[in-house]
Amino acid sequence: MSNRKIKVTIWNEFRHEKKNEKVASIYPAGMHAAIAEGLGTDNFEIKFALLDDPEHGLTEAVLADTDVLTWWGHLAHDEVSDEIVNRVYDRVLKGMGLIVLHSGHFSKIFKKLMGTSCDLKWREADEKERIWVVKPGHPIAAGIGEYIELPEEEMYGEHFDIPEPDELVMVSWFEGGEVFRSGCCYTRGAGRIFYFRPGHETFPTYYNEGVRRVITNAVNWAAPVAESTYPKYGHAVPSLEPIKGKK
Amino acid sequence: MSNRKIKVTIWNEFRHEKKNEKVASIYPAGMHAAIAEGLGTDNFEIKFALLDDPEHGLTEAVLADTDVLTWWGHLAHDEVSDEIVNRVYDRVLKGMGLIVLHSGHFSKIFKKLMGTSCDLKWREADEKERIWVVKPGHPIAAGIGEYIELPEEEMYGEHFDIPEPDELVMVSWFEGGEVFRSGCCYTRGAGRIFYFRPGHETFPTYYNEGVRRVITNAVNWAAPVAESTYPKYGHAVPSLEPIKGKK
Amino acid sequence: MSNRKIKVTIWNEFRHEKKNEKVASIYPAGMHAAIAEGLGTDNFEIKFALLDDPEHGLTEAVLADTDVLTWWGHLAHDEVSDEIVNRVYDRVLKGMGLIVLHSGHFSKIFKKLMGTSCDLKWREADEKERIWVVKPGHPIAAGIGEYIELPEEEMYGEHFDIPEPDELVMVSWFEGGEVFRSGCCYTRGAGRIFYFRPGHETFPTYYNEGVRRVITNAVNWAAPVAESTYPKYGHAVPSLEPIKGKK
Amino acid sequence: MSNRKIKVTIWNEFRHEKKNEKVASIYPAGMHAAIAEGLGTDNFEIKFALLDDPEHGLTEAVLADTDVLTWWGHLAHDEVSDEIVNRVYDRVLKGMGLIVLHSGHFSKIFKKLMGTSCDLKWREADEKERIWVVKPGHPIAAGIGEYIELPEEEMYGEHFDIPEPDELVMVSWFEGGEVFRSGCCYTRGAGRIFYFRPGHETFPTYYNEGVRRVITNAVNWAAPVAESTYPKYGHAVPSLEPIKGKK
Repeated sequence: MSNRKIKVTIWNEFRHEKKNEKVASIYPAGMHAAIAEGLGTDNFEIKFALLDDPEHGLTEAVLADTDVLTWWGHLAHDEVSDEIVNRVYDRVLKGMGLIVLHSGHFSKIFKKLMGTSCDLKWREADEKERIWVVKPGHPIAAGIGEYIELPEEEMYGEHFDIPEPDELVMVSWFEGGEVFRSGCCYTRGAGRIFYFRPGHETFPTYYNEGVRRVITNAVNWAAPVAESTYPKYGHAVPSLEPIKGKK
Repeated sequence: MSNRKIKVTIWNEFRHEKKNEKVASIYPAGMHAAIAEGLGTDNFEIKFALLDDPEHGLTEAVLADTDVLTWWGHLAHDEVSDEIVNRVYDRVLKGMGLIVLHSGHFSKIFKKLMGTSCDLKWREADEKERIWVVKPGHPIAAGIGEYIELPEEEMYGEHFDIPEPDELVMVSWFEGGEVFRSGCCYTRGAGRIFYFRPGHETFPTYYNEGVRRVITNAVNWAAPVAESTYPKYGHAVPSLEPIKGKK
Repeated sequence: MSNRKIKVTIWNEFRHEKKNEKVASIYPAGMHAAIAEGLGTDNFEIKFALLDDPEHGLTEAVLADTDVLTWWGHLAHDEVSDEIVNRVYDRVLKGMGLIVLHSGHFSKIFKKLMGTSCDLKWREADEKERIWVVKPGHPIAAGIGEYIELPEEEMYGEHFDIPEPDELVMVSWFEGGEVFRSGCCYTRGAGRIFYFRPGHETFPTYYNEGVRRVITNAVNWAAPVAESTYPKYGHAVPSLEPIKGKK
Repeated sequence: MSNRKIKVTIWNEFRHEKKNEKVASIYPAGMHAAIAEGLGTDNFEIKFALLDDPEHGLTEAVLADTDVLTWWGHLAHDEVSDEIVNRVYDRVLKGMGLIVLHSGHFSKIFKKLMGTSCDLKWREADEKERIWVVKPGHPIAAGIGEYIELPEEEMYGEHFDIPEPDELVMVSWFEGGEVFRSGCCYTRGAGRIFYFRPGHETFPTYYNEGVRRVITNAVNWAAPVAESTYPKYGHAVPSLEPIKGKK
């Protein structure tokens, strides 16, 4: 992506913030605003897209002008229209990066890209989470040390029903006794996908410096490769070599 | 699976055989019959299921009584109902094996499990294919030597738009100048999936001894593991350890 | 491996048991005896090989007659001769299975097969370990439920300096706050390798039913595939197709 | 690596060029010079290191000042001292990138990092090679289109005895009937490794624009991540949580 800024669209369901006082007090401008603040504007050109916007904010024009999309949803996965899901899916296969956050594990778009149920165990008990780096040289782990500690988070526990990640970057330890594959890389088509576990709406997780660094790293990692060639598919490709005896 | 026979359901679209004289002459009883003959009945208990059967032959009862499903389709992927696709999908995630053959790469069920377009290049030029083993110790490669040579086949060429296989067992060389990842292993949920490229309807590919051996090996490999535990998912799992300060 | 028994050689350093009263009281006949008891003789033909045997018990004849080798070592990795390590290595590449247990992570043979330092964090604090299954349909996880709980074990913590496993089957949670990739599958040449974390000498871990089941499953999984073809390598392979213009 | 240049050390055996007239006429200044020319100096600060230099040119100081090392060797793998191999190995695990070219597949350093024999089939018949991209969105494939065609190259054929690549980016088709995994990514410790097949000394392969682009991309991909944390290993790590009842 060299010298131009990466174009990031931050998608947020933006419902909890309007319904729940605790969430509103933590994220008065919405979780998308906190995520944007963590990215900053030095290297990123940021747009917001919200569930209740027309076309959920994800028009053809917006997606065409997006390098990396981040996704936070929870209450209203079913309200996201299949048409928009298919539109996002097509863009990912063509190279757009996708960062799926926390409860986005159950979004239509993540399940469609994974080909599995994406189910898991969960518990709200305000418990400690420690996110360990298991791939220290990976660009998504840069600058965060050996682990990130979050004093209170929702628990997600294994088994997490995802395909084996292409690269497993982080694994969480939970106070209540579970583990979880918390930082998972995938490629689908020409697009790169990163799932990152933390971010329950009732905790100030998206203000945590380590969490912000991971999201920033992930956006950089998932940005499309310049000059990547979209392959030709389909019928009647002429042979590159003579087919003997058929001439 | 120890001592009982593996229950295999062979699914076939069974349209070409009824429409096209050449196909009918090669596979007079249908491609499913040739695939069944290749498996034999010593270790397998075989059922057929056809597109034009009620519920495409894939009732809840049939699927519940299937260890491994094989899938050949081509002309009529769109005629397979979404309801049945979802039913097969649920069974795969719970542990049923799935062997996807040749043009089945574009079936609804394969695309749903992969999360990609599954597109590729293709050409019908009656050209030579040589399927090289790139993972010689793998059970699916047992007994076939270093490669299988097919004197005439349809060409499938890269890029094949699939997720990076969990294990890549075979790669094809084509006379016309292309290569293709021909034997690809995946896990989705508790289910094992194998994609195997050859099998164009106008060639006697499913009589080839090497091809038959691979399909037999793949069915054995994909059979569900006895005593596998289907995980518990969802809400309100109690903590296994005390959450400190929270009692 | 069908109907004949799998030939297992259980290699043990067998030093702690002779030096340390606590270890001797837990494993009076040596850890190898407890591991053998866990496998049983119904499906396995078991030999022992010990560090202080001539050639460490791993003569050419013994290795040629071994399907799967299990390895426990700790104090005396450096006393294992390079010649024997190379002999084991060659057999693994030709198809012999290898199960590396606990402190065997630092054995010469494991480091040579991994290509990394295999270093990790550790602590002896008699703490609880809970080994979670993260790949429930995998044959190595059969019959053990969602996790194995060990009331007291040595801690091994990330970062574990291994190549990304081909398949990650289990992840450990430790009471003291760490996680660890505890069940890791690899292929090297035609040989299958499984690393399994638990088994500190001062605890009765190899009497635990879950641990025994995993080792039994792993031996079955790692046994060489019958009729696998050892490839031809090297010079002057004749071309399979004419090289045009060169005659 | 942001704004500073990546420090590349190009290692060459540099023997063929001095012994063989044909090689000398293609690479009068050595293959290292042609590789350097392909990288250019806009983004890279390039050093050479040659087998016959003191310490093979790979002193502690040189390696400490190298972000990415490229390796071409063929005739004299055995003349590379084990001490220097271990030195390179340690640097890779700490994060230095390594690009292994062509016959470097049989170098001590590559075999040590892979943990396999790295053996393959080969043939010198001046045949056509077509290197297909099988991972189009990957940064190493940027800018080269769907394939690179080399009119004459040495053939390398499967089975290539390497661990399953973390990412398989390219597969070669050969005129004589073989295929080969030609572009393979690995991580070992914090270091990234790319194996790239083409580059026989009797052909002008390192002047080919596609080959040069791949090497340039690979160097960028393998450069160490800034701010990556080298983990702490070893004994007596204090627990992060209280061990209950042991206090």
